[in-house]
Order: sequence, then structure tokens, then C-alpha cells
Amino acid sequence: MKPTIPQGTRDFGADTVRKRNYIFSTIKAVFELYGFQPLETPAMENLETLMGKYGEEGDKLIFKILNNGLDNEAKAEKIREGFAKVTEGKSSKDITERALRYDLTIPFARYVAMNHQQLPMPFKRYQMQPVWRADRPQKGRYREFYQCDADVVGSKSLLNELELVNIYATVFQKLKVDVEIRINNRKVLAALADICGGAEKMIDITIAIDKLDKIGIEKVKEELSGRGLSKTQIQTIESFLNISGSNEEKLQQLKTIFAQNETGLKGVEELEYIVQYCQQSTVNSQPVLDLTLARGLNYYTGTIFEVKANGVQIGSIGGGGRYDDLTGLFGVPNIPGVGISFGVDRIYDVMSELDLFPKEVVSGTKLLFFNLGEAEVAKAMDLAQTLRSQGVACEVFHENSKFDKQFKYAEKKSIPFIAVLGSKELEQRVVNVKNLATGAQQQLSFDDLVHFSW
Amino acid sequence: MKPTIPQGTRDFGADTVRKRNYIFSTIKAVFELYGFQPLETPAMENLETLMGKYGEEGDKLIFKILNNGLDNEAKAEKIREGFAKVTEGKSSKDITERALRYDLTIPFARYVAMNHQQLPMPFKRYQMQPVWRADRPQKGRYREFYQCDADVVGSKSLLNELELVNIYATVFQKLKVDVEIRINNRKVLAALADICGGAEKMIDITIAIDKLDKIGIEKVKEELSGRGLSKTQIQTIESFLNISGSNEEKLQQLKTIFAQNETGLKGVEELEYIVQYCQQSTVNSQPVLDLTLARGLNYYTGTIFEVKANGVQIGSIGGGGRYDDLTGLFGVPNIPGVGISFGVDRIYDVMSELDLFPKEVVSGTKLLFFNLGEAEVAKAMDLAQTLRSQGVACEVFHENSKFDKQFKYAEKKSIPFIAVLGSKELEQRVVNVKNLATGAQQQLSFDDLVHFSW
Repeated sequence: MKPTIPQGTRDFGADTVRKRNYIFSTIKAVFELYGFQPLETPAMENLETLMGKYGEEGDKLIFKILNNGLDNEAKAEKIREGFAKVTEGKSSKDITERALRYDLTIPFARYVAMNHQQLPMPFKRYQMQPVWRADRPQKGRYREFYQCDADVVGSKSLLNELELVNIYATVFQKLKVDVEIRINNRKVLAALADICGGAEKMIDITIAIDKLDKIGIEKVKEELSGRGLSKTQIQTIESFLNISGSNEEKLQQLKTIFAQNETGLKGVEELEYIVQYCQQSTVNSQPVLDLTLARGLNYYTGTIFEVKANGVQIGSIGGGGRYDDLTGLFGVPNIPGVGISFGVDRIYDVMSELDLFPKEVVSGTKLLFFNLGEAEVAKAMDLAQTLRSQGVACEVFHENSKFDKQFKYAEKKSIPFIAVLGSKELEQRVVNVKNLATGAQQQLSFDDLVHFSW
Repeated sequence: MKPTIPQGTRDFGADTVRKRNYIFSTIKAVFELYGFQPLETPAMENLETLMGKYGEEGDKLIFKILNNGLDNEAKAEKIREGFAKVTEGKSSKDITERALRYDLTIPFARYVAMNHQQLPMPFKRYQMQPVWRADRPQKGRYREFYQCDADVVGSKSLLNELELVNIYATVFQKLKVDVEIRINNRKVLAALADICGGAEKMIDITIAIDKLDKIGIEKVKEELSGRGLSKTQIQTIESFLNISGSNEEKLQQLKTIFAQNETGLKGVEELEYIVQYCQQSTVNSQPVLDLTLARGLNYYTGTIFEVKANGVQIGSIGGGGRYDDLTGLFGVPNIPGVGISFGVDRIYDVMSELDLFPKEVVSGTKLLFFNLGEAEVAKAMDLAQTLRSQGVACEVFHENSKFDKQFKYAEKKSIPFIAVLGSKELEQRVVNVKNLATGAQQQLSFDDLVHFSW
């Protein structure tokens, strides 16, 4: 039997794990600098916690776990009953009660709803865990992938937005990824809907605008028309999308358009606050006001964010926004918040394409002791222990094989140095150390080996 | 609706995540020092990869994932057909094709079988990921828990065993957990079976011996008798289990017992090699030869390991052993190996009970700037950015609330320092910094704040 892995999933070998961990630990360190605390939730949630939270399409993409006992071992009757119910459209509890996490937001909301009385408020948490979606696998889309979120809940203060912009800026500065941080505000989009035929058009308009990047203005207009908007309304939207200039110029134009619209002016005020703060701030994180930015998710109600990498053709590598109500669905109202997310898979792709991973990131073993016999290896093991106690990763080859084989092992593992310790060296208490990249070789006493700078 | 989490699963809050990560990163750092490389495999495996690998009981405890589409949305006919097949004992592929990882060994074997031609051999990998088992939840037993394994495959050399003993010793030294590393050898147990009625009794004997710790010698004897061993045979086993003294003394007695048994002598020789090396080694890791140690898993064929924490009543916190054939089940023969595992949940419990976590481990935010108004906060945000750029985690309170509320936030998050920056301080370019533990207060200039040692 030739084994395979499930479609849409991946094994990560050493180099990939190390590079991914470099991204994760960079983000994590920045989250911690801003007072965010780690949270980990289980891979499984009760099915009812997840169902109905991601729309009809989402429900279908949730991986459900078969109740235990419902397999070859189960009683036929129980299975038939359970599935008969489901086929009649009734509860599927007899078959599945649990499902795999689909995102990190709903488990977070569930956690806050269960623990809000004990939590410090505002509660700032970050979470980096895999999620699972039964999407059709395709290039760059996987059935298992990591999400990496930071949220502040229990606060309406715009200071949170400022800090999240700073976090984005700091993380990508540290990763040396040149990005554009785009912001917009759902209140501005709501106001646009207001002046274009009423609030009930809000969802139609944001969904259509959200596709602008992918399908272009003409198709967006078609879609808006399909969604029942009139020519005049579509013209208003188009002229809104055409607003251009610097952040300040855009804000001025918005103030004119929404002069009579309270929600619109509130949105403009919020945007202005962020733009002005960032101009005076020490972080090099000038966000760009992008009025075409909508973000598909409907629960956003204020600032929305998106991050694009400059110089590569790839979708957004981060996004987020403000919402009014995190936990209402779980019976705990009045917990507003704002959050951002990092698209780690895409950040990985960008950094690979632009060759941005520092070389040290993938370095493992620094030194391989060749194995030249029992007495020699006993000493090599000793030296290896001493080096390790000083933080130098090293290995002793497992058997007294031909030099060639031992060399190949070092090469295959990209080990930069090898140490040869034969009977003569043992007698003289020295080792011959060779740098495999340069070919440079030197003889070191046992003492000097321990103080060598690798 | 009041949300809950699935039975047997856990949310990990900030302190717990930090303490767990302290354990993980300590183990990881040691693995890396010995040249082990990280591997991550997907949470899901094809069902056929897992089924039949963990015994009948294990098969039942594997969490199976419902095929997509098999829910309320699915066509009744398809569901009925699929389940009809299962109830007839046929393949359940129509219902479930994937399952959650049950341990890290089989996914590792699957990975090696798929990639062995590209991998450096011997291949040393470590893996720290959650696994899922549909066990009945009880104290200390969870349905989702982490495993933490290191294996070397493609080598029969006992140098690997030595390094694994050293890894155990180093990790627990670093964690300051006082442990006893116990070793035994399956060849010795096989030889015991040989002289007690034949090799086919090996499994019976090891399963019974393995329970000695839990059920005592009398029950073990009953079980052996129940498994068809004669009185004489049971006597031989009992006298074997009663062998006592120092490692050397035990080895001497074993040499006598197995004088005529080649396998037995081989096992004794292997044990002797490890014992002697460790006596001369620089690591303080004298393993104890424990002849009652059997380890339940039947695929072990050589050295076996177990680690117990001294001074606490808790089962083993680590274990492992040598096996002859990792990947034969997946069509790739002749890959022997040896591995160890760390029981992170139990290590966590031991360290909690003995109060062994360093205080710094749970520290998050170092300093909270109180919020005293807009102009003051603008400066606080600036100072916070500077502190963060120097690695000091700090926060600015999100709103201009009463002092009391801001204090409570600092307390709840165990933030050790607060900084008060009011209009007067802003004018004088100073902040009042208070240490909440000691009550000590001092006024620092903006410049001094940045160089303060937290």
C-alpha cells in the first residue's frame, strides 16, 4: 500500500517549519509588545457553536466529526435511525455533534462569552492555530491552514485601531516585507448606501465593491445593476469609488459628499483621527485611505484594514476591522471589538518570492563529528556534549562508515562544518575542522574547539 | 444559548499557554542541539493510514471525519446507501475517508515512507503537535492533547540510544525536574519468554509485566496464570522481576540467567553499553536498569525507556524505545529506529505541583500608561512605541477612566509597573512610575524612562 496524505493538506519539512516559525515568532513577539495575550482553543467545537455563523456556504465547508461508535462497530439500528432523521432534514446530532474549527473568531467569541466575567477588560488576545475548511483544494488554497489573529474586545476606543496599525507596520518592518496598509470605514460605506437608495442596500453594495480588485469597475456596475440598483445610484457609487488624491484630499471630498449624513461624517472623523495620528507617529506606517476597500464580512461596523505586499502579485496578506458585537450570538451582548489577522501562508509565499528569509532561520546542526571508531567516537560524544552545553547544535555520525557517506550526510543536511577526529588526532588532543562552504580547514585543540566561533 | 466546549477538550488561557510554551521550547531547543529537525504533519490523515495500526481498541478511539456533503444538504439516497454498506460491515468510505491524527508515530511513518529517498539517513525528526482520541474523558485524560516526540530512523547504532538518554537528562535538568530515567531491553524480555515456554508467550508476558506498577506482583501472577503460563514459568518470571542491586549487579545476574540464550546476551550487552557510557559521560544522567519495565507497545524490539519524576505521585512523564521496522506497513521495509516521547501534560502538572515554573515565564506587559486625556495619551503612545522598540512590552489604557478602573486593569493582568503622565508631567517632560508590588514610586524624565530597567 502506497500511503498518501489527504487532498488539500500538507506535510511541512524542516526548512518550511523553520521559516514558518520565523514568521509566527516575529508576529507573536510584536503582539506581546503591545500587551496581547495568547489563547489556545481546542481543534473541535460543538457543532452548534459553529453552524449558522459563516453563512450557508460556510456551513457546508465545516468539517464534521462522526460521533464515536458510528462505524463498523456500531449497531446497525442506531445508525439507520440517525441517518433517517438527517435525511428527513432533522437534527443530525445522532451522527455528528462536533466539528473542526473553521476560523479563530467564533471560538474566541465562544471563549469570551464563557469567561468574560473573569477576563481583564478590554481583553487583548492573540491566537495562532490551524483551521479547517472543506473547500475545493487549489493552488494556494488548503483544507488546513493557520490563522493568526489579534483582537481587542470590550473597548470602543480608536486607540486600539492606532495600535493595530502600528502592529501591522512593526511586524512587516521586522520581516522586511514592504507593504501598503489600507484603511477604510464601514460607516462611510453605510453612508454611501444611505444616499444610494437606503440602508438595506448596504450589503449588496459592499459585496459588489469588495470584488472591484478582482473583476473591475464594469463588472461591479453590472453586479450592482443585477442587485437592483438604479443607474443614478450606480453613478453615485462610481464617483465615490473614483475619489482620488492624498489621504487629506480624499477626506475633504468625503466631508463634502457626506455633509448631511451623520454616519458618514462619523466615519470620516474616525478615519481622520487614524490618518493624523499616523502622520505624527514614530512608526513608519502611513496607512493609505482606500475607499474601494470593503472587506466581505458583514459584521464589520467601523474601521476596516487590509495589507498588500508591494512588488508581488498576490492578494492581501492581512486584514481586519471593527465590529460592534462579538458575543451577542452566545447570549452576551455589548462586547464590541476590533481585530486584525495575518495571512501566514501568503506572507510565506511573498517572503520566498522576494528571498527575504534570513539565512540563519533554516540553520540546524552546525557541526558534524565524523565517526572513525569506538575510542574516537567516545571523545567526539564528549566534545559534542560540551559544545551543546554552550548552545552549539552538533551531531556525531552514527556509524564508522566511509568518509564519502559521512560527507553526503553533512551535505544533505546543509551542515556547515565537519570535525575529523581520528586516532592520531585523539593522541594529539586535536580535531580537524573543515568549513564545507569555503573548503577552509584548520586544526584545533580540544580546548579551542569549544571556543570556536561557528 | 449558553456555549460550552466539547467534553475532554480545553481552552488554554495566557498563563497556561506561556507555561506550556516554556516546556515546549525547552524541549525543542534540546532536540535542535542534537541535530533533530522539526516536522509537522496535517491534523487529518486518510482513514486507511490510521486504521488497524493501534489495535482493535485503538481503531474505535480514532475520530473519523464525516465526508463533506453528508449532512442536511446531502441527498438522502447517497446517505442511505453509504450507511447501508457500513451496517453490512462493508467499507465505510462513502461516509468517512479521513480521520484525526491519533498519535505522531504513524503520521511520521507515513511521511518517511513517502519521502525516504529524499531524506538524509539516518533521519532525525522531532514533532510537537496535538493528537485526538475518543477516550472517555477523566481527570488527566483528554480527547485532545499534545505529543512531543523525537525519533532517529535508518540506524541501528546504539549511539542513538545514548543521545536520547542525554536528551532526557538535559531537558529535565533545564526544567529543574528531578527524574529517574529507567531503561530495559526487549531482547532481555524476549529471552525471558524463551526460557518460559517459548517466544509465543512474549506478548502475554510483556503485557502482564507492564502492569506491575499498577496492580502489584500477585495480580501479575494471576494474569500470567490466566494467560496459560505454568507455575514453574511464573516462578521464573517472578525471580527475574526480583533481580535487584546496582545496575552492574543486575547485569551480572542477567548474564548468568541468559548464559545459554543468544538474544538475552545481546540485550544485556546493549544495556551494558548504555550503562557504561553514561557512567563516564559528562551529563548527569545515570539511567536505572529496571527489569520490570516492559512498555505496552509491541513494536519495540530493543532498548526501552521510561522517565519518572521523583517526589510526586504521577505516572511516567516520558517513554520510548527501539523498533525494527517503522515503515514496513507502508511498503518500505528495513527502516529501523529509536524514539522517545515527552508527556507534556504530566510534565506541566509536575512542574505546577512542585512550583518549578520560573516567574518570568508568565510575565506579559511590563508597564501600563494611565490614560489622563488626549494630549497626555498622544505622548504616552509615543513613549510606548519607543519602549516597545527596545523590547519592553507596554500598554496605554484605552480610555480616560477613573484611576481605580485603570488600576484594576493593571492588577488583573499582573502588570508590575504603571506610569502616570498628567498635564503637569507632560509640561515637565516626566512620568511617575509606580511598582505595584512594592508600592515604590519614582519620577523619571522621558529620557530616563526609556532607559529604566524593568
